[in-house]
Amino acid sequence: MTANQNREFRLAARPVGLIKPSDFQLAETPIPEPGPDQALVRTLYLSLDPTNRVWMSDRDGYLPPIELGAVMRGIGLGQVVRSNNPAFPEGSLVQGLLGWRDYLLIGTGTGVSVSLVPAGLGVPLPVLLGALGATGLTAYFGLIELGKPQPGETVVVSAAAGATGSVVGQIAKILGCRAVGIAGSDDKCAWLVNELGFDAAVNYKKEGWKKQLTAACPQGIDVVFENVGGEILDAALARINLRARIVLCGLIASYNAKEPVPGPYNFGNLLIKRAQLQGFIILDYAARFPEGVKQLAQWFRQGRLQHRDTLVEGLQEAPVAINRLFDGSATGKLLIRVAEPPLPVT
Amino acid sequence: MTANQNREFRLAARPVGLIKPSDFQLAETPIPEPGPDQALVRTLYLSLDPTNRVWMSDRDGYLPPIELGAVMRGIGLGQVVRSNNPAFPEGSLVQGLLGWRDYLLIGTGTGVSVSLVPAGLGVPLPVLLGALGATGLTAYFGLIELGKPQPGETVVVSAAAGATGSVVGQIAKILGCRAVGIAGSDDKCAWLVNELGFDAAVNYKKEGWKKQLTAACPQGIDVVFENVGGEILDAALARINLRARIVLCGLIASYNAKEPVPGPYNFGNLLIKRAQLQGFIILDYAARFPEGVKQLAQWFRQGRLQHRDTLVEGLQEAPVAINRLFDGSATGKLLIRVAEPPLPVT
Repeated sequence: MTANQNREFRLAARPVGLIKPSDFQLAETPIPEPGPDQALVRTLYLSLDPTNRVWMSDRDGYLPPIELGAVMRGIGLGQVVRSNNPAFPEGSLVQGLLGWRDYLLIGTGTGVSVSLVPAGLGVPLPVLLGALGATGLTAYFGLIELGKPQPGETVVVSAAAGATGSVVGQIAKILGCRAVGIAGSDDKCAWLVNELGFDAAVNYKKEGWKKQLTAACPQGIDVVFENVGGEILDAALARINLRARIVLCGLIASYNAKEPVPGPYNFGNLLIKRAQLQGFIILDYAARFPEGVKQLAQWFRQGRLQHRDTLVEGLQEAPVAINRLFDGSATGKLLIRVAEPPLPVT
Repeated sequence: MTANQNREFRLAARPVGLIKPSDFQLAETPIPEPGPDQALVRTLYLSLDPTNRVWMSDRDGYLPPIELGAVMRGIGLGQVVRSNNPAFPEGSLVQGLLGWRDYLLIGTGTGVSVSLVPAGLGVPLPVLLGALGATGLTAYFGLIELGKPQPGETVVVSAAAGATGSVVGQIAKILGCRAVGIAGSDDKCAWLVNELGFDAAVNYKKEGWKKQLTAACPQGIDVVFENVGGEILDAALARINLRARIVLCGLIASYNAKEPVPGPYNFGNLLIKRAQLQGFIILDYAARFPEGVKQLAQWFRQGRLQHRDTLVEGLQEAPVAINRLFDGSATGKLLIRVAEPPLPVT
């Protein structure tokens, strides 16, 4: 790449099973010129999220599928480097669906929806996409608004060492709940308990893990924050208390499936326990993001909320790195560092 | 049976698959004598309900399993024929878990929970167990409190020609909704549309029924009142609108299953559509039964709510008749007529 070129990954094929590099086409284009009321943004970090996989399929979801040939959709953090739009001054940080590319135009006529990152949050840049980003906000609004946890209740979260799950458990602790995580390695479980303060964590890849889950929830389960589905959701549903709340946030176990996947075998327990299950997409809470970011930032600065990321260097790594969401090799927020801020951050 | 004998069906074995007569033992015992503060009740009608099958299994449910050797649990309508308890005057009607027997004692020390049927409801006796009974109340509270239907919304109910489903659709119409039923025969569907005023009804045993369901719900589905589960729930979930409500009232498709049954394949649609699914057991609304009965009785007297039953004569038929809940041969409320009221009804 030359200094005045822009790279972008376009969707070349819809993945079957896991994502392959050949599902993308890398294009090099000139860096675009901002027109009137537009600004040029340099992508700094890209967020890799399980929902990216859903967008790549041709199933209608909460957003339409990415069109073949279009730039790969993805949440990112960028910096305004040239501006003809006073709403986006040079040096300011923006967040939104930047896409998998080095540069993009925002503002009038671009159709790109971004929001300014409030100044003075006092957190490192990767935290803006992690504990304070879409995944942190997912944890915050999903747990509080739909899980409605009461002090002393038991909250179980799956994919607990992931970007969303790790924040869910920490907020549960802040709210006075018992926090129990389900994760895929002993290292992750140790991190959840020893560093993040979870009361217990269970490695679902080890034999006897369901008994351990029972032992970890001596009062049963009041809130399930579900990111995975399949056998893991089934284990949680088998242990819910009367009037439990299930926040259905993700079903990552099925995102790469080639055949239809059945729902949980313990579905009937929702009836017997008069449980409430609620599907949840963070975009529905967009109007309240500032409130959530403010609270999360405060907890972060107070040391009550920790952020961890798995940082991969270079935009060119994105097509391979994204599968780390599915193979268990990422802990916390999976990010691509695309560039350092070219301008002083304002 | 002699005139001064009591018959009772006791649970002899836990059914495997469909219920067999050999799962019961018929015992003849003397008619009991009411002690102080007790009353003797003559069973008039027994209600046969899918939940009976659940109680016969050894799975913990919302009520404990019936113990082997105990009288078969069942909802019934009875008349007080001798009384030492002023709360239950002779001639009055009582309703509750009378059990599959001719006579029983109620009052102090009997452990039987019954409630007096309010005088002056002005409806035939079978209606007290049907449109105004537990199944009518299930329809009333489940639809209104959990389904939260708004005028103009589309309500789909499965097992629509059953005791609960037929009332759900009629209440949906009263509330100004589009009511669509799923049932198992053309006759049932014709009854729902022509007699009960459903907007449409689909026979799930006919080829192409899912396309018919789509056509019957041109605006999609806002409320699913689910009594069946399995493929029928899946078809409904495939068609839900954003923020749909699913009232999970029954899963009759799985009650006779010998192997674990998977949840719905379209489970993920609950996430994408941000739907709310809520398990529902009518017992949780016991404190509000008088309010529900009053409203249902008013609609019944106004001719806005119809009751239909499938009436089987004789207590001795109960062990065979109960399978009519599962083979599709009952329409409306399935009842056993045990006896005519021996005393004038007060």
